[in-house]
Amino acid sequence: MFKVSCHSLMPCPNPNLLQPRASLVVQKKGIGKMHGRCTKVARNPNMERLRNNYLFPEISMREMEHIKKYPNAEVISLGIGDTTAPIPDIIASAMSDYARSLSTPEGYSGYGAEQGNQALRQAIAQAFYGDLAVKGTEVFVSDGSQCDISRIQLLLGSEMTIAVQDPSFPAYIDSSVIIGQAGDFHPKTGKFRNIEYMKCGPQNHFFPDLWNTPRTDIIFFCSPNNPTGHAASREQLELLVEFASENGSIIVYDTAYAAYITDGSPRSIYEIPGAREVAIEVSSFSKSAGFTGVRLGWTVVPDELLYSNGFPVVNDFNRIICTCFNGASNIAQAGGLACLSPEGVSARRSVVDYYKENAQILLDTFSYLGLKAYGGVNAPYVWVHFPGLRSWDVFSEILGKTDIITVPGSGFGPGGEEFIRVTAFGHRETILEASTRLKSLFL
Amino acid sequence: MFKVSCHSLMPCPNPNLLQPRASLVVQKKGIGKMHGRCTKVARNPNMERLRNNYLFPEISMREMEHIKKYPNAEVISLGIGDTTAPIPDIIASAMSDYARSLSTPEGYSGYGAEQGNQALRQAIAQAFYGDLAVKGTEVFVSDGSQCDISRIQLLLGSEMTIAVQDPSFPAYIDSSVIIGQAGDFHPKTGKFRNIEYMKCGPQNHFFPDLWNTPRTDIIFFCSPNNPTGHAASREQLELLVEFASENGSIIVYDTAYAAYITDGSPRSIYEIPGAREVAIEVSSFSKSAGFTGVRLGWTVVPDELLYSNGFPVVNDFNRIICTCFNGASNIAQAGGLACLSPEGVSARRSVVDYYKENAQILLDTFSYLGLKAYGGVNAPYVWVHFPGLRSWDVFSEILGKTDIITVPGSGFGPGGEEFIRVTAFGHRETILEASTRLKSLFL
Repeated sequence: MFKVSCHSLMPCPNPNLLQPRASLVVQKKGIGKMHGRCTKVARNPNMERLRNNYLFPEISMREMEHIKKYPNAEVISLGIGDTTAPIPDIIASAMSDYARSLSTPEGYSGYGAEQGNQALRQAIAQAFYGDLAVKGTEVFVSDGSQCDISRIQLLLGSEMTIAVQDPSFPAYIDSSVIIGQAGDFHPKTGKFRNIEYMKCGPQNHFFPDLWNTPRTDIIFFCSPNNPTGHAASREQLELLVEFASENGSIIVYDTAYAAYITDGSPRSIYEIPGAREVAIEVSSFSKSAGFTGVRLGWTVVPDELLYSNGFPVVNDFNRIICTCFNGASNIAQAGGLACLSPEGVSARRSVVDYYKENAQILLDTFSYLGLKAYGGVNAPYVWVHFPGLRSWDVFSEILGKTDIITVPGSGFGPGGEEFIRVTAFGHRETILEASTRLKSLFL
Repeated sequence: MFKVSCHSLMPCPNPNLLQPRASLVVQKKGIGKMHGRCTKVARNPNMERLRNNYLFPEISMREMEHIKKYPNAEVISLGIGDTTAPIPDIIASAMSDYARSLSTPEGYSGYGAEQGNQALRQAIAQAFYGDLAVKGTEVFVSDGSQCDISRIQLLLGSEMTIAVQDPSFPAYIDSSVIIGQAGDFHPKTGKFRNIEYMKCGPQNHFFPDLWNTPRTDIIFFCSPNNPTGHAASREQLELLVEFASENGSIIVYDTAYAAYITDGSPRSIYEIPGAREVAIEVSSFSKSAGFTGVRLGWTVVPDELLYSNGFPVVNDFNRIICTCFNGASNIAQAGGLACLSPEGVSARRSVVDYYKENAQILLDTFSYLGLKAYGGVNAPYVWVHFPGLRSWDVFSEILGKTDIITVPGSGFGPGGEEFIRVTAFGHRETILEASTRLKSLFL
């Protein structure tokens, strides 16, 4: 009936030839409907390039299968790095009081600034970057690091060349694939063609061989690293900043675990001279305040960071925040302010110390077993080496024999093969039980 | 010092030739630094294509200039559609209690499902789509509609052709520019080359002339419309769904204001037969529960919505949510559940009714002035026609003479020229004062 329409909806190809529907979304659904009517909208080719499921949903699925098979199994998860300690009372109370005040005329507020509450931006600048000349206006409050990584990809666009540590947190690569930077996947190498994988392992002190690393526009770098638990040293970061400066690259520096650093390694890239001209920093309250579910993080974009034409990156990032984001929840932001009060800082320190003790128990366990384990000192992750074994096989064997969920290292990139990651987030008794089971397994 | 590096950072071009730094971000900053060191990273060409500032920051800037010029002015904002009524106690209390429980071992929870709390997904499906066969697994809880629009753009990618109502909420076009769908901007027409602008005004009952609208992959459609306040009728929506079906297009249907519909017009696109095969629906708690600052919304992607190759859109959207988002704040989600309790529904209804009475006062005011005003019946926005005048001029004149902030219609697209939008969100006394000032201005 419309002038330009000419066909009814197209017949669909045989859906059995297609990738299966994600089991997390569609359950017990007949496939008949799919034969019905397709739109004429082509699937985004970038989405087609994504590999398998995102790592953690895949692990959840395997956990569910295990439980189905062994309904009486008492599964312990040392998998996803999810906090387990309650939020310190001083911080939870601040959020609770703020939420209640929203029902009063005096306490109510609607839209906040997209960039975040000014007092919180200022407090973050002060608390985390006191001596480092970061201004409140350079701090953008967010709903977490992972979300900011995707907004940074929107900022950068599809034409960027990127480098990532290998292994690394999957969101860097996956968001790069989604935005269209990654190119095709090579099943043989396990790598995307247009991504530079910077191998980081015990052989190079978990720091890439920059002398043999080609220039890229963007370098994603995470310290303390997820998954290896390695906190880059000052000397390593000086090299990294020099490398970026000489190449005119931008570092996207992820410090979501910085609160775990206690050996004097830098907690911010801006401790390194010259970093303000080459680095964006992404961080989070998730792992120090137990905010994984509350959702609060931030990104710093220094005024001095400029594109090749002299345009300030911060202006474009501000635009992304205003257009694609509407600010973090005001309740979470009230919690963020409480996190930075003296009592909040001290309470968060106790939580972090608790998880660090867990990490030491795990390190001792693997040492007892004669296995080489890394990380765990400046990070809540322990990275265990199983020479000659495939990490998904190790994952399956540990799950099968001890009912413990770990994360296979290869889920973090080909450089993670032969390793598994175990998290130190957990209740003490759980960690101790896991330790007992692991020790008996291998003896 | 590195093998592949060859030059130090590039000299920057003269920054005075560049677009000025966004005044909201960089204040009182010497420009000297900008000459220093540029990276070699080219600015994302999509970001360069964006027009001016995002509308509401631009209005804020003009408001600040006005206040600077007239420090004693008592400015009333009928600008940004920001809620002012406190959150109903039953809802705020639920969030407050939940936040407090996060400090207890029993009440604490970390990461939730990226797609949202299962009970909330189910409750949304039930409350808003009870008879419409929407399943909980098709509901993705989010931090708000505007954020979901950007995630939908990530889902779709740069190759999509899109159509928008003209005028429309700026985030559709701006996010389309950012992802790379829009093409170049034509200053003469005020339009992006690759975007189809579907003019909606009084002349066509605020519904596009689909008989003369070319096919696009995606059709953004907002009802009740922001800014015009028009709620599409059942007949209009049947035409829209038929048009999308015949063309094999996908409708992205925005119902952020659906709670304001009281004349029997559809509150969901899924009230229209066939819509499940052609439409995504985006919605929000912002404007019915006062959650503009709390941040909570959702998107529905029906299982039957398929790409041309038969692949379900919901699978890719699930992947976007897992990779680029980490779930809405758990405290906000607790509030969402309370919104859907019988008491919550009734409390939200009172809030909506209050704003609708405001809208009626504004409609009466403009009627009194002999101006044609639209919307306001099924929406919290009134859309006022000033034939022959430019909307930014009307904005300036009203601000200058009455200290009232409005929104210039052209900020919503060329089809908004000659109009201004005024919001009915506000305290009653403010709306009455605005009414008085407006009446005296024009008499």
